Amino acid sequence: MAGEIHKGHIYQRFDAELADLRSKVLTMGGMVEQQLADALRALSEQDHDLAARVVAGDLEVNGFDVDIDEEATRIIARRQPTAIDLRLILTVLRVTNDLERIGDEAERVARMADRLAEAGEGRGHENRLGHISQRVSRMLHDALDAFARMDVELALKVAREDADVDRDYEGIMRLMITYMMEDPRTIPAVLNVLWAARAIERIGDRSRNICEYVIYLVKGKDVRHTSVEHMAEEMERR
Amino acid sequence: MAGEIHKGHIYQRFDAELADLRSKVLTMGGMVEQQLADALRALSEQDHDLAARVVAGDLEVNGFDVDIDEEATRIIARRQPTAIDLRLILTVLRVTNDLERIGDEAERVARMADRLAEAGEGRGHENRLGHISQRVSRMLHDALDAFARMDVELALKVAREDADVDRDYEGIMRLMITYMMEDPRTIPAVLNVLWAARAIERIGDRSRNICEYVIYLVKGKDVRHTSVEHMAEEMERR
Repeated sequence: MAGEIHKGHIYQRFDAELADLRSKVLTMGGMVEQQLADALRALSEQDHDLAARVVAGDLEVNGFDVDIDEEATRIIARRQPTAIDLRLILTVLRVTNDLERIGDEAERVARMADRLAEAGEGRGHENRLGHISQRVSRMLHDALDAFARMDVELALKVAREDADVDRDYEGIMRLMITYMMEDPRTIPAVLNVLWAARAIERIGDRSRNICEYVIYLVKGKDVRHTSVEHMAEEMERR
Repeated sequence: MAGEIHKGHIYQRFDAELADLRSKVLTMGGMVEQQLADALRALSEQDHDLAARVVAGDLEVNGFDVDIDEEATRIIARRQPTAIDLRLILTVLRVTNDLERIGDEAERVARMADRLAEAGEGRGHENRLGHISQRVSRMLHDALDAFARMDVELALKVAREDADVDRDYEGIMRLMITYMMEDPRTIPAVLNVLWAARAIERIGDRSRNICEYVIYLVKGKDVRHTSVEHMAEEMERR
């Protein structure tokens, strides 16, 4: 009986630790979302100071990454979790890794914003990134939501949107090539727009990754490296 | 006594499982190295068939990724390893993740090789990638060696080389911008060379990541997000 109560205490503490870990990931996610929003605003408004703040802010994101990794490792070593709890912790490690990389891509966008602010010919083309930026920002937000609520339907919806982002990106690339060929003086500036577009596209990829981990966690099925249609089929089969 | 023997058996089995896991990572590493070598040859020789084989081969790399992840998770759940063993398994997961992404970048290089094979004006600029390609191929090889032998000195050497790769890449970018501005008809082809250069540069980043995990594993110190000089200092202090 005393053993039972003692065990209950341990479980409660373990649950609290897991909840704390998840909440740290969501805090980190919120910070990364803000970094992306700031980087995109620095890009569209050619705001040098805001771009510099995003670059500096990446250090804080990286701090979260290391912190969460260490805490997750400590929990595994101390609690020796099995089955669903272990899967949750490994998912946290994967999500954190992708969030950290999304932070890096946001930093890249900010650096491009900074270079564009100094560029001469070719400024203004960054306005073409509005559509893809909005779409990817929403994807990241929804991916974090899907993780917070373990919402498989939402995760699948976000994973599906990645194909639209890829199409947006291809369209931007074609357009930018046309601009550069028409007026070669714009090449350095337009390339910066292209690099920013690519960074934004990669954030779409990584938001999709997060959603795949959520599906994996909930369904226990590794859906990485499979098509979205295959994912949907797998889910219906269960 | 019987218990001791039984325990010995379990440990032996556990060691065998860990050895098996490490050897799978090294096999995957060898495959990824081959993918990179083939992609670079497809690029320099404009070999359409070889490029197609690299693109198809990425599926096999991805299969390894999923396989190793599952096995690692199974080992943690069943053996409940602590301290160094747990750190080894988590390192394996991280290395595998980076190897899988290196495979993706090699696939990207192969796709660019394919597009270049079809391009008109601007062919021939891919020869400028010889130097960075050799450097990054060696980095990947040494990173895997550092992981295989848990060689911290070698890991630090590779991590240091990443700065040279970044410089190579910046030089290529400046050169390619000059080409495009001089002859705008070359823009589509030269952009493909630039994308390939960027993919190669990213492989350098990820080889550096692998080395950081090795240092972390051996020294128990998280060196990600720190400068190479700081890493060297930390190592000397121990």
